[in-house]
Parts: sequence; C-alpha cells; structure tokens
Amino acid sequence: MTATYSLHPIGVVRNTEGRAWIEVRPEYRDAMLGLEGFSHILVLFWFHENDTPGQRAMLQVHPRKDPQNPLTGVFATHSPLRPNLIGLTRCRILAIEELVIRIDAIDARDGSPLIDIKCFIPDKEPLPEIRLPSWV
Amino acid sequence: MTATYSLHPIGVVRNTEGRAWIEVRPEYRDAMLGLEGFSHILVLFWFHENDTPGQRAMLQVHPRKDPQNPLTGVFATHSPLRPNLIGLTRCRILAIEELVIRIDAIDARDGSPLIDIKCFIPDKEPLPEIRLPSWV
Repeated sequence: MTATYSLHPIGVVRNTEGRAWIEVRPEYRDAMLGLEGFSHILVLFWFHENDTPGQRAMLQVHPRKDPQNPLTGVFATHSPLRPNLIGLTRCRILAIEELVIRIDAIDARDGSPLIDIKCFIPDKEPLPEIRLPSWV
Repeated sequence: MTATYSLHPIGVVRNTEGRAWIEVRPEYRDAMLGLEGFSHILVLFWFHENDTPGQRAMLQVHPRKDPQNPLTGVFATHSPLRPNLIGLTRCRILAIEELVIRIDAIDARDGSPLIDIKCFIPDKEPLPEIRLPSWV
C-alpha cells in the first residue's frame, strides 16, 4: 500500500436549467482575490458519482461514449471514469458575486465537489506540430 | 467535518538534469492506450513538498514569488501553495517507451507524485475577449 493524498472540497459546482456557477466556501474567500482580473478560469472538480472502486478501476473507454470510437485508455481522454476522479474544464467568468462565480457552462454534474480553481492564461501563439487521433 | 476524497498516485514525475519524464505504474498501463495519437498531454501532479496543514492554509501569494506583483488569491494563480495541492502542466510528448513518457519540460519537482494524465485538445480558434491582470 502506498501513500494517498487527501482532497478537501473548496466548494460546489452548480449546473442546472442552463445556468452554471460555482460556490466557494466562506473559509476560502481570501483565495479568490484577483480572480476578477481574468476572463477565464480552470475549474477542477470531483466526479463524485463515480467514486467507487469499480469505476476507478475502469482504465479504457470508448471516447464520448460512442462505440464507433476506438477503445482508448482513460489517460488519452477526458473521461469521467479514471483512477483519480478529477474533472477539468475551462470556463468563462460571467460575474463574481461574493462567493459565487457565474460561468458560461461546465461539463460537471450539479453538486460536484469543487476541488480547485486556477487562472487561465492562453498561449501567446498557436502551438506548432499539434497531433490528434482521428476520433477527436 | 465534511467529506474528503482520496488520490492514489498513478506514477511519478522525474525532472532532473534538464530532462523530464513521467513513469506510470504498471497497474495503469492499460490507461495509456492511445496516448501515442497525441502530441501534447495535461499532466496533473501533487505538490507533495507542500503537504502540510500550514502550507495548505496559505490563501494568498505574490505571483511568481515576485514581491512587486500584487498579493493575489491562490485561485487566481498557479501557485504550488493551495488548499488542494494539484499542479497542472501541459507537456509535449517526446517519446513513449513502455511505462515511460518522455516530455519536453515540466514545472514539477523531481519525485512529485503523478495524479492524472489527460489528452490535450487545443482550441480550434483563438478565444475572443481574453482578459488578464497586468502581472501576467
């Protein structure tokens, strides 16, 4: 048995009726200072509905749940089934109201535990030599 | 006290003498299928050297450790001090050799626990209306 690391939720993702926002817990308010300077953030959340040993042991999927797509290792996807259930989405900030950050959209289930927020800094120039598999 | 979530390291980040690579544990080999189709990956790792209650309670920093930069909440940065110590770097794949993925560079300490790998899919078009604070 090797070391494990503990995540403490810092809030919750809300996603309902076409609106999305994140709610930060009051004890993390100070960590939001300066967010208003950014148009976009990276939102990290926990795929809590899949937090079972069986689902965390699923190592291959058909991307986008399409059986036409080749069986692919989860590290080569953004599948919500993976050993560590971290979801990652870039979101546009619509408004910040105290502990609530209203965002354009997020591919997280309503109620997903919020794990981290990071600023998003785009590349100054397009990356050269991008390669992608055909299913993308 | 609220729920916490457990991360199980899936490997380790190596970063030494100007070379960087990640080593995936054998039990996660199947999750790598299809990685070779991508030029870039997102590497998630744990800032293990900062895993103390005191460091995880640090909510504001001067970005890039430059006191000239304004005091900023860690959610508006990529600081290695944050409540959940997840680091995130986009890396170019140089080669995949069994369980080793050689990468161009990574801003992780040698020996950092590897938490997740995700494929990187760039935007088709530049994002409109990007806003960044002046310290960036």
